[in-house]
Amino acid sequence: MKMRGFAMLGIGRTGWIEKDVPACGPLDAIVRPIAVSPCTSDIHTVWEGAIGERTDMILGHEAVGEIVEVGSLVKERKAGDVVIVPAITPDWGSLEAQAGYSMHSGGMLAGWKFSNFKDGVFSEYFHVNEADANLAILPESVDPAEAVMLSDMVPTGFHGAELADVQYGDSVCVVGIGPVGLMAVAGAALRGAGRLFAVGSRPVCAEAARYYGATDIINYREGDIVQQVLERTRGRGVDKVIIAGGDNGTFAQAVAMVRPGGRIGNVNYLGEGESIRIPRAEWGCGMGHKTIAGGLMPGGRLRMEKLASLLETGRLDTSRLLTHRFRGMEHLEEALLLMKDKPRDLIKPVVIF
Amino acid sequence: MKMRGFAMLGIGRTGWIEKDVPACGPLDAIVRPIAVSPCTSDIHTVWEGAIGERTDMILGHEAVGEIVEVGSLVKERKAGDVVIVPAITPDWGSLEAQAGYSMHSGGMLAGWKFSNFKDGVFSEYFHVNEADANLAILPESVDPAEAVMLSDMVPTGFHGAELADVQYGDSVCVVGIGPVGLMAVAGAALRGAGRLFAVGSRPVCAEAARYYGATDIINYREGDIVQQVLERTRGRGVDKVIIAGGDNGTFAQAVAMVRPGGRIGNVNYLGEGESIRIPRAEWGCGMGHKTIAGGLMPGGRLRMEKLASLLETGRLDTSRLLTHRFRGMEHLEEALLLMKDKPRDLIKPVVIF
Amino acid sequence: MKMRGFAMLGIGRTGWIEKDVPACGPLDAIVRPIAVSPCTSDIHTVWEGAIGERTDMILGHEAVGEIVEVGSLVKERKAGDVVIVPAITPDWGSLEAQAGYSMHSGGMLAGWKFSNFKDGVFSEYFHVNEADANLAILPESVDPAEAVMLSDMVPTGFHGAELADVQYGDSVCVVGIGPVGLMAVAGAALRGAGRLFAVGSRPVCAEAARYYGATDIINYREGDIVQQVLERTRGRGVDKVIIAGGDNGTFAQAVAMVRPGGRIGNVNYLGEGESIRIPRAEWGCGMGHKTIAGGLMPGGRLRMEKLASLLETGRLDTSRLLTHRFRGMEHLEEALLLMKDKPRDLIKPVVIF
Amino acid sequence: MKMRGFAMLGIGRTGWIEKDVPACGPLDAIVRPIAVSPCTSDIHTVWEGAIGERTDMILGHEAVGEIVEVGSLVKERKAGDVVIVPAITPDWGSLEAQAGYSMHSGGMLAGWKFSNFKDGVFSEYFHVNEADANLAILPESVDPAEAVMLSDMVPTGFHGAELADVQYGDSVCVVGIGPVGLMAVAGAALRGAGRLFAVGSRPVCAEAARYYGATDIINYREGDIVQQVLERTRGRGVDKVIIAGGDNGTFAQAVAMVRPGGRIGNVNYLGEGESIRIPRAEWGCGMGHKTIAGGLMPGGRLRMEKLASLLETGRLDTSRLLTHRFRGMEHLEEALLLMKDKPRDLIKPVVIF
Repeated sequence: MKMRGFAMLGIGRTGWIEKDVPACGPLDAIVRPIAVSPCTSDIHTVWEGAIGERTDMILGHEAVGEIVEVGSLVKERKAGDVVIVPAITPDWGSLEAQAGYSMHSGGMLAGWKFSNFKDGVFSEYFHVNEADANLAILPESVDPAEAVMLSDMVPTGFHGAELADVQYGDSVCVVGIGPVGLMAVAGAALRGAGRLFAVGSRPVCAEAARYYGATDIINYREGDIVQQVLERTRGRGVDKVIIAGGDNGTFAQAVAMVRPGGRIGNVNYLGEGESIRIPRAEWGCGMGHKTIAGGLMPGGRLRMEKLASLLETGRLDTSRLLTHRFRGMEHLEEALLLMKDKPRDLIKPVVIF
Repeated sequence: MKMRGFAMLGIGRTGWIEKDVPACGPLDAIVRPIAVSPCTSDIHTVWEGAIGERTDMILGHEAVGEIVEVGSLVKERKAGDVVIVPAITPDWGSLEAQAGYSMHSGGMLAGWKFSNFKDGVFSEYFHVNEADANLAILPESVDPAEAVMLSDMVPTGFHGAELADVQYGDSVCVVGIGPVGLMAVAGAALRGAGRLFAVGSRPVCAEAARYYGATDIINYREGDIVQQVLERTRGRGVDKVIIAGGDNGTFAQAVAMVRPGGRIGNVNYLGEGESIRIPRAEWGCGMGHKTIAGGLMPGGRLRMEKLASLLETGRLDTSRLLTHRFRGMEHLEEALLLMKDKPRDLIKPVVIF
Repeated sequence: MKMRGFAMLGIGRTGWIEKDVPACGPLDAIVRPIAVSPCTSDIHTVWEGAIGERTDMILGHEAVGEIVEVGSLVKERKAGDVVIVPAITPDWGSLEAQAGYSMHSGGMLAGWKFSNFKDGVFSEYFHVNEADANLAILPESVDPAEAVMLSDMVPTGFHGAELADVQYGDSVCVVGIGPVGLMAVAGAALRGAGRLFAVGSRPVCAEAARYYGATDIINYREGDIVQQVLERTRGRGVDKVIIAGGDNGTFAQAVAMVRPGGRIGNVNYLGEGESIRIPRAEWGCGMGHKTIAGGLMPGGRLRMEKLASLLETGRLDTSRLLTHRFRGMEHLEEALLLMKDKPRDLIKPVVIF
Repeated sequence: MKMRGFAMLGIGRTGWIEKDVPACGPLDAIVRPIAVSPCTSDIHTVWEGAIGERTDMILGHEAVGEIVEVGSLVKERKAGDVVIVPAITPDWGSLEAQAGYSMHSGGMLAGWKFSNFKDGVFSEYFHVNEADANLAILPESVDPAEAVMLSDMVPTGFHGAELADVQYGDSVCVVGIGPVGLMAVAGAALRGAGRLFAVGSRPVCAEAARYYGATDIINYREGDIVQQVLERTRGRGVDKVIIAGGDNGTFAQAVAMVRPGGRIGNVNYLGEGESIRIPRAEWGCGMGHKTIAGGLMPGGRLRMEKLASLLETGRLDTSRLLTHRFRGMEHLEEALLLMKDKPRDLIKPVVIF
């Protein structure tokens, strides 16, 4: 059986292609998308070649869908289930998963399969490995479009707050207030941050950052962000920093503004450059206990279920991210190009099939 | 110089007494109360003899006040500073504090000094050890009466959520919704709890529990609380339990309702009985990874500063606890008796001097 | 195909039975034992009915063996591989495993399958679920009989030290010096314990405890163990306690001897009694930060590989546990009865096929 | 009263000077050295100007001594006590200490006072702040010269293993096998490391590394150390890396050889260069969960007591470090120059007064 999908044809080129519907292995599921969203990393993949050359690879890794087929060994999921699909779908028996790092199952970052090692979700059907372990039932009260934000934006942003280990009353600086950064702001507030600085410049994002809990917006166009944070903290700096945007130079700023004993959590995909520079003196000559952690979001079913409960109980409202809603698969290209062009009023588009 | 204070005269007896104003050691401060609040533990101390006999001991350990004198070695605090006074004022150089357990500095629970080892805060003046390390400046924008809740109610309730190690999307059950339990509810919500059960029966508290983030109120008068929680979780139970009320029997319920790998955090002072009973089978025959942790709140200056930032930034509103506000020191007895009698509309009284 | 196995016929009765060789599912392996060892829990299972009635269930859960067949989806293991088989073989995709508690995959304790939910290893062949994720290659330099101790004795004892969170220089008390307790002693020493008390009475075990790192042997026949520990620590008690023996009453002793801020790690299977009693006053009225943790060992392939590296590098020598070595499957009953009768010179028997 | 001390006169110049015996504040002690040891950081301080210009500052921060005077508020220490003096002597009431980072009390690295902010221990007398909280009694059975290694070498090396969070069976690579690196090797082995690579070239150190638990010596003169480690681990790399030597470039090597989910713990003082470079691709584009932590050793009394118990119980033998023992204060310069010149047979000198 054939299906249509919107694909990366090669670096810098996209288009609609036709492919066979993927085969369903004994542990797997085939899912029909209900709502999907393009991600900045799709942009990096296509137009910057961030993961190298790919030919005729269907894009997309954020989706809610309906299961149409399950493999013979699948026990808890069945055709007809409406499910949240995480961007990261680990191999749960791998040594890395046993060590607590399922997102690196099979190798560094290899829990990320959609639109990386295999076709993504911008298609009539897509394949999910280990269906019982990777697909969560969408709660009835949750809007599918809002739930698509659970695939990547929420778990990635929240992982920034986990990596930074935000505690009650910590002062926190979130660098970057695109959709992931906004979820990092929300995640920091939901772990008990006190003063919460958000670094960005676009008004639509700054407004959303305040909505999600930022107490101070730092505009990098109004001066050095380290100086601005130090001034507002009487020279003390912040307890924790979450990097959800910026570039390789952001780490030097983060080290400079964080206190000894602080942590820097990075969830920004660093797509280019040879290296990140850690300033020696500000890092306490290697002795300052300014820990630098960075990692891919944890995926899988349990993570999706837990985060979905935050939507169900009203602790988190992702609808504020969805500035552009499209109806119909044919709008996929338009939605993707929005992420590329970043108009002033954009936070995140969603396409409802 | 003499001062008046409201004291425990002996077990079961209270009254006004006159004493010398305490002497100020080189590291210490003398503070004049601005607002204070009686605590259930004052009730236990006087009418149940929970900490044994005491004679003419001034009661109270929750206060905001103004420093009137500091010792010769105090550097960062001075007369005139308006400060939040934590119920727990550790000896920071002690081995226990070095090990991370400052509340047990000098021996188990010995960081608790006010109305335990020395006179409390229901007085014209009171003494604070290690003033630089134990007193936090009250932020200008924060109401002193609301800040009194930072002395004990907030840090104790929040410590329950810390001991239970609440994580994003965890289902949590808080047992007890007096003022500490309500702050445990708020603390669990502020650490990212999803479904949040609160066990209690008084309507004023149930309403406040919903305000602070409870999604389900469990009334123990309507049936066994374990059964109620299991029914509402399709038999799975909850990820974490916080005990902030009940009695020694509450632990068996907590063990029964928590999942393997879960944690039980206790912040309820257990004033009577020989022992707590852990049910063997429900505890997985000792193998179920249902960890039981209980501990006195962390006190000291940094804790107060961090929690005060939650009031300053509007993340937490303690005014909802303050059902009864008195003006004038002479109302101390009336306020204390409210905590003893627990009228239907009471959550917590405060006395503004 | 038929096979012989030594089984529990019913509570209190054992004997040889014949059964079909188990079928190999797509993810599974069939293994032929090379060396096995009976465990005290086999004794509890048969003669105390600790896990309830079982009929014709083959016993045993500690083994090294050779794979004779693997399922169609198994990728990294193959017939002919000599493997260490953990007593706990989780379902790695389960929600519990995703939460970090693989030993409770599918329900509390349900990662324990051998001689519990299915036939054990005292047989010509046995079945292993998720072969890739649960079987570790035996390093060439390691003796199979010594490696059998990695199935249960080492990971269980070491988990006691993990649950107690032993740190450099901690004073530790290990209660019980059977084979699991001895591995708890070794595990505590290998995590940097300083003073290390071991509670037991049998001379062969006391001698082994010293070999594995105990600095003081506490004989419960020479007086109350709490008093003995307090006397030897100038009344301060110990930082951590590991319970690897004793009975339900041991917890009250552990609480009494551990310092505030300490931890009690239990790895003793509590086979009888209604409940465990935590003494209220010694537990700091619920406020002493004396955390009580107890849990089944983590199993699976990675755990086996990591522990095997300790044998390979000579950090740990399990040969000291093997007081009785039998050659031939027909000695299984004799070996099992040794564990029941506990002669003076026994620590642990092993049967080499 | 006057005293003599061996001092840094200015960058690049040392000599004997005479100074007033320091005054003893109310919380402090004055100590007469019994045994001291020069440290590589004394070399950095004098000949590289690593901490900037200093004039007539007495050197040295590793000592065992006898208390000759205590302040009026000191309760647990008294003249005549023989004590271990940690290189790091925190201000325990500081906010940083309350946050768990006492080594940064009063500012980043400011728990390091000796031969940094005040005169060091290469003197007839020296001053110790917060005597009760910072001085540990030397156990009777421990040799003072061996105990001097507890001031800095042991806690710093062991902190590397703490920062890297070594767990049972982890493969670990320690870069640098000077005295701190050797204690990192010992510390990794004492936390349960399995395969343990030690990178260095001097034969006396390589031999000591094997004694302390290294399983493989990697000589950087025999090829790229990353390649050597990858070859010996079949391309998988190691679980943890401890940096205790090398230079700023060592971090790139550490990132390249550590697995996703691994940790890099740095305890090497980085004395020069603008920055440390983290290679983007090997760091998983910021997503690899290769955490980078670096920090000054925890000091204070409890740390000294805990580590001293490892000498007392024979878990650790520091005598192997002491290749050169001098008797008499007049040998201080000779001992210091040894650390500068690093003859082939040197690990660490000690001077017994």
